[in-house]
Amino acid sequence: MNIDKNQIAEHNQQLMAAHQRRLSQVIDYLPNAVNIVQKLVDFQVAIPSWALGTGGTRFGRFSGGGEPRNLEEKIADIGILHALNRSSGAISLHIPWDIPKDYAAIRALAEEHGLAFDAMNSNTFQDQPDQALSYKFGSMQHVDKAVRRQAVEHNIEVIKHGVELGSKSLTVWLADGSSFPGQLNFRKAFQNTLESLQEVYEALPDDWKMFVEYKAFEPNFYSTTVGDWGQSLLYASKLGEKAYTLVDLGHHLPNANIEQIVALLLMEGKLGGFHFNDSKYGDDDLTTGSIKPYQLFLIFSELVEGMDARGMEHAKDLGWMIDASHNLKDPLEDLLQSVEAILIAYAQALLVDRAALQQAQAANDVVRAQEVLQEAFRTDVRPLVAEARLRAGAALNPIQLFRQQDIRGKLIRERGTKTVATGL
Amino acid sequence: MNIDKNQIAEHNQQLMAAHQRRLSQVIDYLPNAVNIVQKLVDFQVAIPSWALGTGGTRFGRFSGGGEPRNLEEKIADIGILHALNRSSGAISLHIPWDIPKDYAAIRALAEEHGLAFDAMNSNTFQDQPDQALSYKFGSMQHVDKAVRRQAVEHNIEVIKHGVELGSKSLTVWLADGSSFPGQLNFRKAFQNTLESLQEVYEALPDDWKMFVEYKAFEPNFYSTTVGDWGQSLLYASKLGEKAYTLVDLGHHLPNANIEQIVALLLMEGKLGGFHFNDSKYGDDDLTTGSIKPYQLFLIFSELVEGMDARGMEHAKDLGWMIDASHNLKDPLEDLLQSVEAILIAYAQALLVDRAALQQAQAANDVVRAQEVLQEAFRTDVRPLVAEARLRAGAALNPIQLFRQQDIRGKLIRERGTKTVATGL
Amino acid sequence: MNIDKNQIAEHNQQLMAAHQRRLSQVIDYLPNAVNIVQKLVDFQVAIPSWALGTGGTRFGRFSGGGEPRNLEEKIADIGILHALNRSSGAISLHIPWDIPKDYAAIRALAEEHGLAFDAMNSNTFQDQPDQALSYKFGSMQHVDKAVRRQAVEHNIEVIKHGVELGSKSLTVWLADGSSFPGQLNFRKAFQNTLESLQEVYEALPDDWKMFVEYKAFEPNFYSTTVGDWGQSLLYASKLGEKAYTLVDLGHHLPNANIEQIVALLLMEGKLGGFHFNDSKYGDDDLTTGSIKPYQLFLIFSELVEGMDARGMEHAKDLGWMIDASHNLKDPLEDLLQSVEAILIAYAQALLVDRAALQQAQAANDVVRAQEVLQEAFRTDVRPLVAEARLRAGAALNPIQLFRQQDIRGKLIRERGTKTVATGL
Amino acid sequence: MNIDKNQIAEHNQQLMAAHQRRLSQVIDYLPNAVNIVQKLVDFQVAIPSWALGTGGTRFGRFSGGGEPRNLEEKIADIGILHALNRSSGAISLHIPWDIPKDYAAIRALAEEHGLAFDAMNSNTFQDQPDQALSYKFGSMQHVDKAVRRQAVEHNIEVIKHGVELGSKSLTVWLADGSSFPGQLNFRKAFQNTLESLQEVYEALPDDWKMFVEYKAFEPNFYSTTVGDWGQSLLYASKLGEKAYTLVDLGHHLPNANIEQIVALLLMEGKLGGFHFNDSKYGDDDLTTGSIKPYQLFLIFSELVEGMDARGMEHAKDLGWMIDASHNLKDPLEDLLQSVEAILIAYAQALLVDRAALQQAQAANDVVRAQEVLQEAFRTDVRPLVAEARLRAGAALNPIQLFRQQDIRGKLIRERGTKTVATGL
Repeated sequence: MNIDKNQIAEHNQQLMAAHQRRLSQVIDYLPNAVNIVQKLVDFQVAIPSWALGTGGTRFGRFSGGGEPRNLEEKIADIGILHALNRSSGAISLHIPWDIPKDYAAIRALAEEHGLAFDAMNSNTFQDQPDQALSYKFGSMQHVDKAVRRQAVEHNIEVIKHGVELGSKSLTVWLADGSSFPGQLNFRKAFQNTLESLQEVYEALPDDWKMFVEYKAFEPNFYSTTVGDWGQSLLYASKLGEKAYTLVDLGHHLPNANIEQIVALLLMEGKLGGFHFNDSKYGDDDLTTGSIKPYQLFLIFSELVEGMDARGMEHAKDLGWMIDASHNLKDPLEDLLQSVEAILIAYAQALLVDRAALQQAQAANDVVRAQEVLQEAFRTDVRPLVAEARLRAGAALNPIQLFRQQDIRGKLIRERGTKTVATGL
Repeated sequence: MNIDKNQIAEHNQQLMAAHQRRLSQVIDYLPNAVNIVQKLVDFQVAIPSWALGTGGTRFGRFSGGGEPRNLEEKIADIGILHALNRSSGAISLHIPWDIPKDYAAIRALAEEHGLAFDAMNSNTFQDQPDQALSYKFGSMQHVDKAVRRQAVEHNIEVIKHGVELGSKSLTVWLADGSSFPGQLNFRKAFQNTLESLQEVYEALPDDWKMFVEYKAFEPNFYSTTVGDWGQSLLYASKLGEKAYTLVDLGHHLPNANIEQIVALLLMEGKLGGFHFNDSKYGDDDLTTGSIKPYQLFLIFSELVEGMDARGMEHAKDLGWMIDASHNLKDPLEDLLQSVEAILIAYAQALLVDRAALQQAQAANDVVRAQEVLQEAFRTDVRPLVAEARLRAGAALNPIQLFRQQDIRGKLIRERGTKTVATGL
Repeated sequence: MNIDKNQIAEHNQQLMAAHQRRLSQVIDYLPNAVNIVQKLVDFQVAIPSWALGTGGTRFGRFSGGGEPRNLEEKIADIGILHALNRSSGAISLHIPWDIPKDYAAIRALAEEHGLAFDAMNSNTFQDQPDQALSYKFGSMQHVDKAVRRQAVEHNIEVIKHGVELGSKSLTVWLADGSSFPGQLNFRKAFQNTLESLQEVYEALPDDWKMFVEYKAFEPNFYSTTVGDWGQSLLYASKLGEKAYTLVDLGHHLPNANIEQIVALLLMEGKLGGFHFNDSKYGDDDLTTGSIKPYQLFLIFSELVEGMDARGMEHAKDLGWMIDASHNLKDPLEDLLQSVEAILIAYAQALLVDRAALQQAQAANDVVRAQEVLQEAFRTDVRPLVAEARLRAGAALNPIQLFRQQDIRGKLIRERGTKTVATGL
Repeated sequence: MNIDKNQIAEHNQQLMAAHQRRLSQVIDYLPNAVNIVQKLVDFQVAIPSWALGTGGTRFGRFSGGGEPRNLEEKIADIGILHALNRSSGAISLHIPWDIPKDYAAIRALAEEHGLAFDAMNSNTFQDQPDQALSYKFGSMQHVDKAVRRQAVEHNIEVIKHGVELGSKSLTVWLADGSSFPGQLNFRKAFQNTLESLQEVYEALPDDWKMFVEYKAFEPNFYSTTVGDWGQSLLYASKLGEKAYTLVDLGHHLPNANIEQIVALLLMEGKLGGFHFNDSKYGDDDLTTGSIKPYQLFLIFSELVEGMDARGMEHAKDLGWMIDASHNLKDPLEDLLQSVEAILIAYAQALLVDRAALQQAQAANDVVRAQEVLQEAFRTDVRPLVAEARLRAGAALNPIQLFRQQDIRGKLIRERGTKTVATGL
């Protein structure tokens, strides 16, 4: 199931006049806005292989249909997304769910769809059928050295798969922690985890990065052994210069100021990447931008400012990925909405009048500083995002085209209604 | 210190061309948008008398200058706001801070500025110098009937002041509660409070409303006797048809879904009014729309939908008021930003394609429902809000004019730098 | 697998001397304490059928072994618990997981173990294999009347099973809600739910109660249609006198004052029952008393006081049930710990010097009020709880006996290591 | 106003028989418990000078009477506490509220009462009448170097006062932060703060410690520049080996696992001290142990374990201080309750069977680990705490004696009813 370039051209043709009119209006009062279009074109958000199927909660899962049944079909799905928006040009694999049988064939398939291989993800939070030792009481933190060893070796294996595919980074998310006071010795758990991470770090190729992801709670409900940015930074600092902190928007305590965390990690040179999603209560894994779009903008505002200050390239020097669970929506539509929200926030952040903001900050003019930010946020940047798609050869309105072409229907006819993709 | 109409005209003249251009662009793709301008013109947000001075926290207060020293100057301040935006046409008084010496003179002064008298506010959370009994352990909940009686009589006195001024509602915010387990018998505290409220209710004129405000915590830190919407609704239902619940955006536990509360209170016919502000942690009392503008939009979306469903008039049938604390910003500039944010959210809510939303809801098309809401939210409605101001005789850019005219400077020269307005 | 009375007698014999010594010490300075032992004997906590197997999270499940494979084995498990502590004398069934094939046989089996049938639980939050319509977008709130009808009929069927078994109540927990703004019309969702509940209520036998359970979030992450005690009370009030609110300790927003909610529901005559568990972040479903034992005590303190004030019988007039998820612990050991924690909290609450507390409250003596509560809480009441078990024929130390007798080992040998009980 | 030793002796004589009986019962089943009494005797909690007066909130303050009017009377108040419990043998001063006029006289007075001088506290969160520059927009973070310099010099002055009095540490709590997005450049604020702290650090005597306190929010409501333990640790690490993190129990986001933070800071050798209080919602500053006594125990459990592991002396190697606000209770009674709760938690933590806990942890026996902790927590250790007081020459029941002697009444007669101590 591929999107034909002619379909996109035809779709764009129908919407072109209205688009050009809207775009010209924006440019009319924001003449420099057009400069940001190229940055939007360059910006790519990786899609995790596990986000292509219907998610669920511990209370149940309501599957849709036409979900990808194997790695090839996952690549095909992301190919569809990328054809539609030209902003989803990378796939993030999860091992053991996505072990390739034939690296060359998978590489070729990805290339065909214009997809790169983003960060590799290991899994030590579940027991696999053939697994020798259980992760019930943790993996890298485990009191039993043999379990820790098993977790380390799994991660090293994940790196090997990644090397074959051309990935350049490993994301380690550990569910390790405890659900009851007394269960863990916190310091020993930290030390065991650090030692395990060091063993994986030793196996990391020189041009790779290791992302240490943190999470406040769930699936453990009393403590998490990489529980906040402070802990992650401690691990990353002790590990070395290839180790970085990864921020997932849903992995914080209520009311945390994530944008400040982002700014400080950038300051320390330790921000490695981002997992986008949105949430109201915990790690709700909702569509990015569906609950707190202003927070998303503020985070991007810090990213742009901090990366510029460090001379980083927005499009390349951080790992950008969506990490969500699609319980109610069609996963592909949900991902299209998420990417759109990310690009809008990025465009708004690029619109911020940095000189005016600095001036307001230098003068403690709080009213003006807010106005500068809100001036950017309240601007309707959708024509700019659409223009970026147009220039990149994507669809002006990806969801509309997805529906008009009945892509889900075609996938169901191709794959069946009872497919359940691997994932959560 | 008044704003001259010529100043406004001149200011508008300078911005007119750009405004007209922006407005015509919006109307170009939203031809019906212009219909909502009149609703924006009609919409008035009351300003509380205590929001005109610099606020503070328990750690200190950093006063600005030129704050109003008496009721007359408070009215003058709101007169300035209303002249600038024509959306702040009401004042909400706080007794005993604002007891008028001469009702007729005060009424005349307000009329001169085009201001109505919104809800009257009583104060039983502080001890006044001449007060017989202390509210240290509560007022209407107090174990001592004499204290409860004092609180009741104070509220009745507040009503009397309001009757003289033409107000039509009483807002009762009780700080009553407890800071330690065991301090209160919760049921007795509820019963005492109910009995006290009933006594005030008896004294309420037939054409008045009583608003029972709830708050989750602060200044009591273990329990609050009117602590959430469920409790407020219980009181309001037991009191009678003139009693309503008042929602203050900052008075909830973390992550509360305020828009759902609003919808249910409207459904029950018990939503009386609104206190606008914004917050990240607790009752932070920040500028409306400065932290969670999407939530503000969602709340307005429920208000518009629910009021339409009940045949209510947006501009009149609810009490709309700002309730914030201006610790860092110039209070008048802060209020201008808040009113602007409120009007933007209201305009966006009016833009929501209700038919499309209902259709999406009826089809469980969650993706589409989100698109319908975000279509409205992502639209830049500032030209519509500006047009409403223009039509009403206000300034196209109130803050800009406020600064150009150096209004704060003039107030300081008139009133001095050491003035501290009554309030929090 | 049954617990032999001789095993218990022998176990008790070994611990008897130490127990008597400890008991006599408590009685030495709390001569009236012995009076509460009978109340502890009478107090029974129902065990839900789904709590007998290993739980899990959306990230995975780590099963133990020897889990009950059918209703008969679930009854046997609770029989073990009840034999060990004589405080777990009821089972709460979940339909369709526990549909009996032969009512009489099941009744006889339960009777054999001394177990009553507590509240029946319906399930409209999951799709069953043979189900006509999906609950993906809700059940009783659903926009489609046919889905609502299906949910109603399921609940009526659950009542019928309950009538056959001698149950007297139905617990309705609805996962209904929404995960995205715009997905639901809150008012219509409420009205649909109310209408559906009314249809179930119509089918409720005269001597039955209906418990309307509320929950702040999960599995929906934006709104829940029975989301807090205020909403539940609204439904229960509109339904009629057989409808009550059910409080689950884990179903609140952060920092909620649950004990106040309990007191107010008792005041309104609308508290129906309790689901015990503990939590730090959300509905963590941890062992009761493992995280916030003081809160548990404060809740019991309100229950005792409020029930006494209404002339209710502690042991009978509320539905008491554990509702937890045992992800890491042996489910039976976890339940024994939970029941122990509940009895300790109850005993401490019974120890509170009510006259002294009232006196302190009447005098606003906050220091003294705290002392009165903490005097009870800091008392080591374990000898009283043990004595209650002794008098009831249970084991002085249930977990110790459970382990000494290797009951889990026996269950595994009997049932196998790969069993997975129905549940979450 | 001093407590006479004879009064204490007489008081103890009256309670002695009951105490000895209770103590002997505890020792009967916990023969080793008596060994912890000496540790309790040695444990001293500093009292901050600002906790001796009635506190308040931004909504008001309800003063009691007899509050200390100057430093001499503050020392006298703590002298009373220390005479009553012999566990409050240190005072923590706040500059500029407590600038001594005559160091030698103040030292002599403190010595007379058996009091040492604990950490000195600086104040850059308020403007003093004679202050050149305002801290409205921060102190050490300020965009204006002159303001930062003023804050640095103030801290250096505080150190000088401390040197004269024999203090050995400086606590820096910064209210610095922002209330609105855009107000601050987070990185510059951090860098400015770090540079300022470095300048103070340069002035720190070799045998002093600097405590960098963190706080999640309030009085700033969007960001705090030393906002969590991760930030504080970053500052402390960059500053050097004399810099440490200080943990205040109320300074966290909802649901934070404070005990884990404590364990990790101890692991890093960077835990400097503790501010005790309790809270439900934010920095509520309630009596220690009044809301979450189990959490307090768990924190002490980590402290004991971690300090033992590092060979630290419990009584000396950390700074222990109460930091609370007494809005409703008599400040001295409140402090007595707090110290009592701290000693109880400490005693319980000392009772934990460490070998059994380690064994359970090594076996992943979560049930047993919980039992080991709860065995200690459920034990009534009050006789041990009372015995420690007895041995130290303090009162068996300090609050009872405080009331019997009508100490507050005497203070009011001595100082008047209208006194208001400096503080919050």
